[in-house]
Amino acid sequence: MEEVKLTILGCGSALPTKKNFHTSQLLEMRNKQFLIDCGEGTQIRIRQFNIKTNRLKHIFISHLHGDHCFGLPGLISSLGMMGRTADIEIHAHPDLEKLIAPQIAYSCGDFPFKVNFHPFNPRKCAVIYEDKSVKVTTIPLKHRVPTCGFLFEEQPKSPHLLRSMIDAYEIPIRALAEIKEGADYVTPDDEIVPNNRLTTPADPPKRFAYCSDTAYNEKIIPIIEGVDCLYHESTFLEEDVVRIKKTLHSSAKQAALIAQKAHVGKLIIGHYSARYKTNVPFVTEAKSIFFNTFPGEDGSSFLI
Amino acid sequence: MEEVKLTILGCGSALPTKKNFHTSQLLEMRNKQFLIDCGEGTQIRIRQFNIKTNRLKHIFISHLHGDHCFGLPGLISSLGMMGRTADIEIHAHPDLEKLIAPQIAYSCGDFPFKVNFHPFNPRKCAVIYEDKSVKVTTIPLKHRVPTCGFLFEEQPKSPHLLRSMIDAYEIPIRALAEIKEGADYVTPDDEIVPNNRLTTPADPPKRFAYCSDTAYNEKIIPIIEGVDCLYHESTFLEEDVVRIKKTLHSSAKQAALIAQKAHVGKLIIGHYSARYKTNVPFVTEAKSIFFNTFPGEDGSSFLI
Repeated sequence: MEEVKLTILGCGSALPTKKNFHTSQLLEMRNKQFLIDCGEGTQIRIRQFNIKTNRLKHIFISHLHGDHCFGLPGLISSLGMMGRTADIEIHAHPDLEKLIAPQIAYSCGDFPFKVNFHPFNPRKCAVIYEDKSVKVTTIPLKHRVPTCGFLFEEQPKSPHLLRSMIDAYEIPIRALAEIKEGADYVTPDDEIVPNNRLTTPADPPKRFAYCSDTAYNEKIIPIIEGVDCLYHESTFLEEDVVRIKKTLHSSAKQAALIAQKAHVGKLIIGHYSARYKTNVPFVTEAKSIFFNTFPGEDGSSFLI
Repeated sequence: MEEVKLTILGCGSALPTKKNFHTSQLLEMRNKQFLIDCGEGTQIRIRQFNIKTNRLKHIFISHLHGDHCFGLPGLISSLGMMGRTADIEIHAHPDLEKLIAPQIAYSCGDFPFKVNFHPFNPRKCAVIYEDKSVKVTTIPLKHRVPTCGFLFEEQPKSPHLLRSMIDAYEIPIRALAEIKEGADYVTPDDEIVPNNRLTTPADPPKRFAYCSDTAYNEKIIPIIEGVDCLYHESTFLEEDVVRIKKTLHSSAKQAALIAQKAHVGKLIIGHYSARYKTNVPFVTEAKSIFFNTFPGEDGSSFLI
């Protein structure tokens, strides 16, 4: 089975800490890499965690607060210096281009690739990217500025061929594509071998939802219902009720409630406020509601 | 004696490494803090090295390559979030404002302080900042884009009062200011106590020169002649002659030659290319010419 892997590059919030850089994550799905948010220092983390970005083409930015996008000019400019030639596609609020265009123009003007901006409306749930193997949908969130999360879904996969049966019937390679799409096989002796004897069912497509930054917002539940993995911000602990309301962020408990109500497979929390020394109380608070909770940490990876 | 202290926040070059962030240094002189260059991640290093920036007001940017200025929007925006109220003064090439203005406007628009840009001409050697205790002069350098270094000089200091003599003659406090400026003291009995019996000579003003990025350029020697400490970039080793010529950077040997010819007190090298695993060969190469060479490392501090 092809792995779907999430690597947390930065799980801090507005102010970085000694341990936690600003927000950024790398999702690897169907042999493609997708960067989600790109806070300052993202390119440094990529180096520190020995990540090769050859398969990175699409970057998704949740909103325009600096801790989610100020790493873009540096990352793009370094990719250029390392010899990149393929275009970079940035999916973001329409205003992002204005924010970073001067730096991109100054630093990347003579690179052999283009930086293409694909604006989306963060207030709408819509498919903003789709290819043969992956689909990305926006998840409107509730924050101080227009913000949306992203639902990454594998497209339906083909069933697995049973190698032993293929060999036993000496099925020629040219017939395999049709079998993978559900056809039975007819032998040279006109024997019909039903498809279900030649294949095992396809793996269910994996689904990952990224929800940061956001206040507690039950409206997202139908969109993320049943995802294999949810990353939901948990900037504060439940006791910080005043800050939660004022800043439109979530507590660990609220992240867990969303995970529970949306019946997700597992929950990863992060975007911890710099005022806390460790993420231990976040995990404790979230696990009391939703047991399958894992703390995001800079450099941690999760198989989905 | 008041300390003059230099802290290397980042000593990498165009591409960061696991150990070396992009260029930034903090100079503490006469109880003021001056930030020199501000590559991506500068605010992270400030946190990691436990530096308080209460006395930081002036930022000097050598040139507009991203590895020397992309950390500005994040740093300024974090200072605002931490409650800063004092204006920030940025001294840089006139184009810097255009590069980062959109991000500053978006992220810092409602902060109670202003970010003031003080453009200078990097092709001229001129005093660009001066107060009662410190003077900053530009050092035109030779790089692919207009670049200059900075000479930080303490203004002349007052002589030290000899506490034992002040006590012995019971000199009143109101007379001390004049004595510090060179006056003799006349006792109530009309005895004249010459100034040199009441004071010891002032400490010589300290001088620090920052020269990055630059090709080997002997024209800077008269400007930096005899400084207590020179930071000179050494991006490459001497063997990388082709890269040195192409990129208009310096080798460790060239940095040392400048230090030697300018009779500086000590040399700090840095801005190492990411292609080298350690800075050991840089130190070896530089020390063979100028023995009093020290390797800059992220987090290292030097008393000047």
